[in-house]
Amino acid sequence: MAEYPKHYCGVFGAFGLPNAAELTYYGLYALQHRGQESAGIVSCEDGAFFESKGMGLVSAIFDEVGIEGLRGSMAIGHTRYSTTGSSLAANAQPMTIDCAKGKIAIAHNGNLTNAAALRTELEGKGSIFSTSVDSEIILHLMAQPHLPGSESPAALAMRRIEGAYSLVMMTENELIGVRDPHGFRPLSIGKLEDGWVLSSETCAFDLIGAENVREVEPGEMVIISANGIESIPLFSDHDSRAFCVFEYVYFARPDSVIGSRSVYRARVEMGRQLAKENRIEADLVAPIPDGGNCAALGYSLESGIPYEMAFVRNHYVGRSFIQPTQAVREISVRVKLNLIRELVAGKRVVVVDDSIVRGTTCRKRVRNLKEAGAKEVHVLVSCPPTRHPCYYGIDFPDRSKLLAYEKSTAEIAQILEADSVNYLSVEGMVAATGQEGSNLCLACFTGDYPVAFDEKFDKVHAENRQMGESTPRFIDELRGGKDQLSLL
Amino acid sequence: MAEYPKHYCGVFGAFGLPNAAELTYYGLYALQHRGQESAGIVSCEDGAFFESKGMGLVSAIFDEVGIEGLRGSMAIGHTRYSTTGSSLAANAQPMTIDCAKGKIAIAHNGNLTNAAALRTELEGKGSIFSTSVDSEIILHLMAQPHLPGSESPAALAMRRIEGAYSLVMMTENELIGVRDPHGFRPLSIGKLEDGWVLSSETCAFDLIGAENVREVEPGEMVIISANGIESIPLFSDHDSRAFCVFEYVYFARPDSVIGSRSVYRARVEMGRQLAKENRIEADLVAPIPDGGNCAALGYSLESGIPYEMAFVRNHYVGRSFIQPTQAVREISVRVKLNLIRELVAGKRVVVVDDSIVRGTTCRKRVRNLKEAGAKEVHVLVSCPPTRHPCYYGIDFPDRSKLLAYEKSTAEIAQILEADSVNYLSVEGMVAATGQEGSNLCLACFTGDYPVAFDEKFDKVHAENRQMGESTPRFIDELRGGKDQLSLL
Amino acid sequence: MAEYPKHYCGVFGAFGLPNAAELTYYGLYALQHRGQESAGIVSCEDGAFFESKGMGLVSAIFDEVGIEGLRGSMAIGHTRYSTTGSSLAANAQPMTIDCAKGKIAIAHNGNLTNAAALRTELEGKGSIFSTSVDSEIILHLMAQPHLPGSESPAALAMRRIEGAYSLVMMTENELIGVRDPHGFRPLSIGKLEDGWVLSSETCAFDLIGAENVREVEPGEMVIISANGIESIPLFSDHDSRAFCVFEYVYFARPDSVIGSRSVYRARVEMGRQLAKENRIEADLVAPIPDGGNCAALGYSLESGIPYEMAFVRNHYVGRSFIQPTQAVREISVRVKLNLIRELVAGKRVVVVDDSIVRGTTCRKRVRNLKEAGAKEVHVLVSCPPTRHPCYYGIDFPDRSKLLAYEKSTAEIAQILEADSVNYLSVEGMVAATGQEGSNLCLACFTGDYPVAFDEKFDKVHAENRQMGESTPRFIDELRGGKDQLSLL
Amino acid sequence: MAEYPKHYCGVFGAFGLPNAAELTYYGLYALQHRGQESAGIVSCEDGAFFESKGMGLVSAIFDEVGIEGLRGSMAIGHTRYSTTGSSLAANAQPMTIDCAKGKIAIAHNGNLTNAAALRTELEGKGSIFSTSVDSEIILHLMAQPHLPGSESPAALAMRRIEGAYSLVMMTENELIGVRDPHGFRPLSIGKLEDGWVLSSETCAFDLIGAENVREVEPGEMVIISANGIESIPLFSDHDSRAFCVFEYVYFARPDSVIGSRSVYRARVEMGRQLAKENRIEADLVAPIPDGGNCAALGYSLESGIPYEMAFVRNHYVGRSFIQPTQAVREISVRVKLNLIRELVAGKRVVVVDDSIVRGTTCRKRVRNLKEAGAKEVHVLVSCPPTRHPCYYGIDFPDRSKLLAYEKSTAEIAQILEADSVNYLSVEGMVAATGQEGSNLCLACFTGDYPVAFDEKFDKVHAENRQMGESTPRFIDELRGGKDQLSLL
Repeated sequence: MAEYPKHYCGVFGAFGLPNAAELTYYGLYALQHRGQESAGIVSCEDGAFFESKGMGLVSAIFDEVGIEGLRGSMAIGHTRYSTTGSSLAANAQPMTIDCAKGKIAIAHNGNLTNAAALRTELEGKGSIFSTSVDSEIILHLMAQPHLPGSESPAALAMRRIEGAYSLVMMTENELIGVRDPHGFRPLSIGKLEDGWVLSSETCAFDLIGAENVREVEPGEMVIISANGIESIPLFSDHDSRAFCVFEYVYFARPDSVIGSRSVYRARVEMGRQLAKENRIEADLVAPIPDGGNCAALGYSLESGIPYEMAFVRNHYVGRSFIQPTQAVREISVRVKLNLIRELVAGKRVVVVDDSIVRGTTCRKRVRNLKEAGAKEVHVLVSCPPTRHPCYYGIDFPDRSKLLAYEKSTAEIAQILEADSVNYLSVEGMVAATGQEGSNLCLACFTGDYPVAFDEKFDKVHAENRQMGESTPRFIDELRGGKDQLSLL
Repeated sequence: MAEYPKHYCGVFGAFGLPNAAELTYYGLYALQHRGQESAGIVSCEDGAFFESKGMGLVSAIFDEVGIEGLRGSMAIGHTRYSTTGSSLAANAQPMTIDCAKGKIAIAHNGNLTNAAALRTELEGKGSIFSTSVDSEIILHLMAQPHLPGSESPAALAMRRIEGAYSLVMMTENELIGVRDPHGFRPLSIGKLEDGWVLSSETCAFDLIGAENVREVEPGEMVIISANGIESIPLFSDHDSRAFCVFEYVYFARPDSVIGSRSVYRARVEMGRQLAKENRIEADLVAPIPDGGNCAALGYSLESGIPYEMAFVRNHYVGRSFIQPTQAVREISVRVKLNLIRELVAGKRVVVVDDSIVRGTTCRKRVRNLKEAGAKEVHVLVSCPPTRHPCYYGIDFPDRSKLLAYEKSTAEIAQILEADSVNYLSVEGMVAATGQEGSNLCLACFTGDYPVAFDEKFDKVHAENRQMGESTPRFIDELRGGKDQLSLL
Repeated sequence: MAEYPKHYCGVFGAFGLPNAAELTYYGLYALQHRGQESAGIVSCEDGAFFESKGMGLVSAIFDEVGIEGLRGSMAIGHTRYSTTGSSLAANAQPMTIDCAKGKIAIAHNGNLTNAAALRTELEGKGSIFSTSVDSEIILHLMAQPHLPGSESPAALAMRRIEGAYSLVMMTENELIGVRDPHGFRPLSIGKLEDGWVLSSETCAFDLIGAENVREVEPGEMVIISANGIESIPLFSDHDSRAFCVFEYVYFARPDSVIGSRSVYRARVEMGRQLAKENRIEADLVAPIPDGGNCAALGYSLESGIPYEMAFVRNHYVGRSFIQPTQAVREISVRVKLNLIRELVAGKRVVVVDDSIVRGTTCRKRVRNLKEAGAKEVHVLVSCPPTRHPCYYGIDFPDRSKLLAYEKSTAEIAQILEADSVNYLSVEGMVAATGQEGSNLCLACFTGDYPVAFDEKFDKVHAENRQMGESTPRFIDELRGGKDQLSLL
Repeated sequence: MAEYPKHYCGVFGAFGLPNAAELTYYGLYALQHRGQESAGIVSCEDGAFFESKGMGLVSAIFDEVGIEGLRGSMAIGHTRYSTTGSSLAANAQPMTIDCAKGKIAIAHNGNLTNAAALRTELEGKGSIFSTSVDSEIILHLMAQPHLPGSESPAALAMRRIEGAYSLVMMTENELIGVRDPHGFRPLSIGKLEDGWVLSSETCAFDLIGAENVREVEPGEMVIISANGIESIPLFSDHDSRAFCVFEYVYFARPDSVIGSRSVYRARVEMGRQLAKENRIEADLVAPIPDGGNCAALGYSLESGIPYEMAFVRNHYVGRSFIQPTQAVREISVRVKLNLIRELVAGKRVVVVDDSIVRGTTCRKRVRNLKEAGAKEVHVLVSCPPTRHPCYYGIDFPDRSKLLAYEKSTAEIAQILEADSVNYLSVEGMVAATGQEGSNLCLACFTGDYPVAFDEKFDKVHAENRQMGESTPRFIDELRGGKDQLSLL
C-alpha cells in the first residue's frame, strides 16, 4: 500500500430520515478511508443545529460523545484527512455559521485553486476568518447581501470559486449538494425510504441500505427540501469533465461504483492491462495488501501465474503503536505486513502495488522477499509514474522526493533493488476505468492541468502568513489618529 | 455560599516573558473562581499563534494536553463561567481570527448591552458568525477597512460597543488591555521582571510574583509592545464610573485588591456594618463557608459574639459527585457542608452568608441548625436584597424566582424558617467598600442602570433565532433568478 | 469469518535482551488475534518485578501507560480472549505472586480439566484464591514446601494438573516454558541476538526478527537462565500427542509455522481438498474474508474457477461501533463486509468460509448474495461439522446451538438458504495439515477426547459458587466456641 | 497544614440497606481525607460479590465507572493513603478472596507490627501472596482449616496479629467490624433505617443521615447479619487502651466525634491551652489553613487577640497542577495559600499550625509574612514536638529529617526564621482531648510504645526482598532430582 500524505475528505448528508445523525454516522464510517484526522456531524431539528466534532476516527469520536444529542431528521457529516498536530482541531468540519440569511453548515471535499486570492479580497473588505479551511471562504461569499436585480449570492459564490469541490450543505430547511464544473471529486445521490442521502462514495449507500440513484453532475446543485429534490445547473456553458483518475487507482473503496463501474472491476482491469503490457516469467503473483490486491488478481487471471497472498496483514495495527526504540527500528515495516517465507523461497515473484510515491516502503518489501530467498523480484505498479503535483486535493510530496521524478524504470528498479519495475501505461489505466480519457483528470501523470492554479500567488501568500511579516496594523491605525500617547 | 448561575469570566495576558503560556496558566489557575466551564490559552511566537482550549477546569484541561506547544513570550488566557451542555465548546475563549490586518486573539469579561443590534447590523452587511459570544462582534468591528481620514476601526469598535467589557487582546506583536468607560469589570496591570501582565484580579499577580502596578482605567486602552507600555484614552468625555459592587460582595477572591482595598477587608467591614445595623443577642456567630467567612468574622469582632466554624466544608467535593438516588436525595446539601452539632445545640446562633438568591439552600442550613438543637437561628446577609436583573454579566435567575422579590424581611424569615433575617443596607455596603457610591454599579440592588439596555430588542432577536423562523433565504434567492428548476 | 466466543490466549517471554519488555510488547502485538480482552507484561530487573496490565487491546493499553517502567532484560506477557464485563480485570494475566521460594509470574494458554477438583483440595487445606484463573492453582501447587526425599513441587505441580496448558513463567532469575504432555496448544522457542524468546506462535518471531529454533515438546519444560537453555522432560512415559487441529483451521495466524508447515499452506491445502471432494459448476469462488481467504484460493487453484474478492472488508471497524437503533438493525452485518454486486449478479457463486458455528452470519451472507442477483450460492466449509464441545480451551456454544448438531448437510443448506453446503472431510483436513491424524486432537469433530474431563464435578462446583450456597462458615466456627453472645 | 506522608486509610461498611454501595460511596467521600491514593467498594447480593477499585479520588474513580454494577444490600469500602508509583494498583483495597469457607472481602486501617514474621511463617507452609498489604496475611490466617476441638480460625487470626487494626469485613452473609485490643484506630457503629453502618469516623454518618450509636470497643468484634448485631469480645484479658492522639491533632475531620468529644472542640481547646501556656503580645492570630483553623480560633478566644484569615486557600488546587519550570519554582508554595498583605504589614503576627514535620513549608510561610512587612512572626504548634517514629500506621519521615529532632525551640525558631516557636505541652494536648492520658497512644511524642515492634526483623526481611537475594529455588528443587539435564 503506497503511503500518500492524504489531503482528502469524505462528505455525507441525510434528509427526511428520522435517524438522520445515526445514518450520517454510518455514512462517515463507510467513508472513513477518506480521512482519519477528524470527523464531525451537524444535525438540524426545527431550525436548531446540533453539532459534534472531534479529532480521530469516527468510531472513537462518537463512541465517546454519542449521537443522542444530534436531533432532527436532517444532518450532514465530514471526515478529514490525516496529518500531525492537535492544533488543527479548529479546522474540523462541518463548519457552521450564522448570518443574515440564517444558519448554514458546510462540508467540503476538494481544494480551491483561487482560495488565497479570494481570501485576500474578502479580508480587504473587512472579513474575518476563524479557520484556514476553504469552506469558510465559500460561506463568506454566500452570506453577501443579495443586491436587487443581481444573481443570488449562493450561485455567484459557486461561480467565484475555482478548483475541486464536492460540497454538502445544510440550511435550516434544506440539504444541498454541489459539484464543481469539472467534477473532480465524486458525489452521489441515494434514496432511502422517504428520504434522501448524499455521499462521496456509494459504498456508504450499501451500508445503510440506500439505493444508488445517480451522481450529482459536474456543475450541478441539488436542493433537497420538503418540496422534494430539485436540480439547478450552476453553469450555462459546459466545461469539460475532469474526474480524478486517482480515485479509481487508490482512494475510493473497491465496493464503490463511479461512472457505472465498480472500483473493484477497474482495479482488476488495471491488473489485466499490466499483464497485457508486461509478460513476465514468474512462479507467483503477490499483492502488497490491500492496495495491490485487485490488480494482482487481475494480473494472475490474465497471465495465468498463480495468485498467492504472501504478505499477511496484521489487522490489529492501530494508530497507537508505541514508537520502537533504536534496537528494533526496522520493526515498523514488519508490523503491518509479515511475509510467508515458504511461499517465496527459491521462487520468481511478481509483486503488485497500486502506486509508489517515495519508494522507501517498496524497497523494504523487495528486500524482505530477497532475504526470504526469492530468486527474482519483479515490481509492477498499477498506474503510471507520478511525476507532477496535484492542485486539486491530493497532497503529494515535493516533486524532488517522488521516486519517479526524472528517472527511468531501470534506474527505479536499481533503487528498489528489484529485478525489474514496470508501470501501467496512461492508456492502459484509462481503458481500465471504462471512461473516456478526456473526461478524466490525469494531471499528476501527464502534467496537463484542467484548471489553472496561481501557484506563485498562493506560495507568497502562505509565506507571508508564516513569517508573521504583517505589521501590527490594528494599532498602527489607532496610533495614526493619536500621536500624543500618554506613556504609563 | 450563595449559588449564582455565574455569567462570568477571568482574563489574563503576559508580554515579554519567556514562559508566557506557563504564567498565563498560573494566572488562570488563580482566576479559576471566575469560571469553571472552559478555559483557553493562546500564545504567540514570531507572529505565529498557538492555541489550546477545552471544557472544564484549568488544571484538568492543561494537565491533559500540556502547555509545551504554547510557544512564545506573549500569551493571553480566558476562563469561563459554568453552565450545562457540552455543545458550547465552540464558545470557549480566547477567540482567534485572521483578517487583513493580521491575526488577533481576544478574551472578554463582561456583557455587551447592544450585542443583538450590532450583530443584526453586521449580518446585514454580509458578516458571518461562528459563535454566539460577544467577542466575535468586537472582532468584526475591528477588522473593518480603515477609511482614509476617519478614525481607526479599533477605536471606533470600542465606541460602538456598549455595556460591560474588560478585554485582553493579542495581535502578532502586541498585548492590549481595554476597559469599558464605566469600568464595570476589573482589570489590572502587573509588572514581572522585564515583562508585563494583565489580569482580572490581582490575586493572580501574587501567585506569579508580579508587582501590582495599577488598574486599567475605565475607558482606557493600554498597548504593550516592544516599545513598552502606552496608554490611549478611548473616550474624550468622562462617563461616570460604575464598578460592579458584587465583585466586592461575592465574585472576587478575598486576597485581591480592588480600588486600593483588599476584598477581604471590604467583606470584614460588611460584617462590622451588619453588626452596627443589627444588634442580636446570640451565643455564637457562624459563617456559611466560604462566602460568609469574612463577614461573620467582622460581625464577631464588632459585636463581641464568639466566632465558631460550625459548618465544616468537605474539600474533596468536586464536579463529579455521583447523582444521589431518591433514597438519599437530601445528601447533596450535606456533602459540601457538615454541621458540628455540639457547637449549636441549645444555642442562639447568628449565621452569616454573603447573599441569598433563591433561598432554598439557606433554608436547608437553617433546618440543619434547628434539627441539631439550635434554640434560635438569625440569618444575616452581607449585602442588600437582590431585586433587579443584571444586564452587565451576572446571570441572576428570573426576578420572580429571587427570594427577596416583593417580600418583606419578615416574610423572608418565615420562608427560611429562621427567627429573623436581616440584610446589610446599601449605605452600609458602600461604606464597607471604601468607594464613593456614585462610582459603583448598584443596579441589582437599586434598579438604577448606568447603561441602557434594549431588553425588548434582544429578546425578540433571541426568540427568532430559537424558533427557527427564518426562511431558507439562501435558496429563495437562488430560485428567484431561475424559475425553471429541472426536477429530478 | 466464523464467530467463536474465544476462550483463548497468547503467551510470550523474553530473556537476556536489554529491551525485554519492548520485545514482549511487540510479541503480544503479533499475538493479538489470540485474545482482545486484556493484556499484561511483567518484567524483571535484579530480582525486582515490574508489572503493567489492562483491559483492551495491547496497543490501547500500552499506548496509555507506556512500557518505560517495565525495566530489565527478562519479561513475560499475556493476551487474553474477549468476553463481556469489566469485572474481570482481576483475572488479567500474567499473574505474579510471592512465596517462600521468591517471586514468580505466570502466563497460561489452555484449560485445565481438573481445575475444580484441585481447587477444592487446596481450599480444604486453607488456601485462598484471589482470581478464578487456572494459573493460580498451578502457583499454589508450585509453592508447596519441598519435602526432603520427594520430587520438586514444580515438577509435581505439572504432573498434578491435567488438560491443555502452554505456560510461560518467570522467576527472579529464569524464564521457563512448559507444554502439557499432549501438546494441545502451541509454544515455540526463538533466538534473538544473545537472548531467547518464547511465543505461542512463530509470527511473533518474524515481527521482532528472531530465528524460529523449534517447538517446546509436549511434556517438556525448558529453563532459560544465565546458564543458557536447559530441557527437562517432565513425563517419563510418552503420552500420545494431541495438537489442536483448530489452530490450523481457524486460530493461528496464516504466517505462523506449526509442525514445519505454514498455516497459510495448510489452509490453501484445505481449499484444494475441498475442491477434490466437491466439484461444483460455478462462475466464481469468493471467500468470506479473512477466514476463508486461503481456502477459497486453494479451491480456485485446484478447480480453475476464478477467485474473486466479492466481499470487501471495512478496515476501520473497531470495537467501538455505536449500537444501531431498531431502524437500522441489519447494519451490523454489512458494516464489516460489503458485497460488490456487479461481481455476482447472474452468477453461480461458490462461497468459502473457515467454519460455521451457529450459522446466523452465514445465512445473512447467502441472502446478501441472492439479493444481489446471484443465480446459485454454494457454501463450502474448510473443516468438518463441529458437533462436540471442547474441554481444552475453545469456548463453543452449547451443543444444541451448533448449526451442525444432528443435522444433515441438506438440512443445513435449507437453513442457510443456500443451493448446497459441503464440509471438508476429517481425512481431507488432516491431510492438509501435513500431520499424522493420531498426533492431532480432533475431538470437536469426532468426539474422541484425548484427556478425560469430569464435566459433572465442575458443573456442580461452579453452580455452588454461583448460588452462594456456602453458609457463613467463618462465623459459625467463631460462634461454635462462644455461645453467650452479648447482643448490642 | 503540615504535610505528612500519610500511611493511612478509611474504612466503611453497610448492611441491610437497599442502596448499600451508594451509601458506601458517600461514606468514602466523607472519609476521603484519610487517603487519596486509591479507593474501592465491594458489594454483595445473594452471595455474589461485585467489585470496583481504582487509583485516585473516590469521586474520580466512581464518576467514571459508576456504581450501578455494585448490587446488593451489603457493601464495604476502603480509601487509601497517598504515595507515588502507579505500580501499587494491585494493593488497592478491599481485598476479596475465595476459600473453603466461602468468599470474604476485607478493608483494613492500621499497621501490623508482626506482619513480616507472620508472612514468613505462612510462606514456609506454602502460602502464596499476591499483594504486599497486611490484609492478605489476615485472610490467610482466617482461611486455615478449623481443627476439631480448637478455637475458630477467625478468632485465632485476630489473636495472632499484633499492632493497629480497625477492620471491616464482609462474608457472603455478614458484615463484620473488628478493632485491635488497644483501639489505636477509630471505628464506629451507626444505625440507618433498618440497617447498620460501620465507619472509621462519624462524619460519614452525618453525611448519610445515620445515627451514631457507639464505637466498636478495643478488642471487640461485631457481627451484623440477618440475626441483627452481635458482639464478640476477642480478648479475655483487658489490654490498656491506646487511642492515637494524632487523630485528634491532625487526621480526623473536625466534625467527627471521638470518645464523646468533637474533634473541632478538642482542637479549639488545644488553641486555648496554647494561649494558657504561651502569652504573646501580638496584633493578630492567623491560622495556616485548614489545619490550624480551630487552634488559632481557640488561641484568639482565650487570648483576646483578633483572629484574621490572612492566608487564603485556593479551592481549585487539585492533584493535577502542572509542574512549574525553574523560572517559577517558588510558585508551588503560593498556589495553595496566598497571603493578604495589608492584614499583616507592620503587625506582630501569631501564626498557628497543627504540627510541623520537616519545617520547610513553615519556613516559607514565615518568609511570606516577613516579606509582606510583618514586624514579628511567632509560630505556635498545637501539639508537642514529634520526635519518635510511629509503628502503628503514620508514615513519619526518618527521625533525622524531623525538624524537632534533637533541637531546642530556640534552634527551631532560628531555622524557621521566626521570632519565636512554641509547641503545646503533652499535658495540654491530653487535657484538650478530654481523655485520660493513659488511654491514649502518645508514642510519637514520648517514645513510650504500647505494643512492641520487631524493627530489626522487619528491616532484614524487607531488605532481603529488595535485594532479590533469593536464589531460584523453584528450579533448584527441580534440578535436585534430575542431574542429567539435556541441553538444547
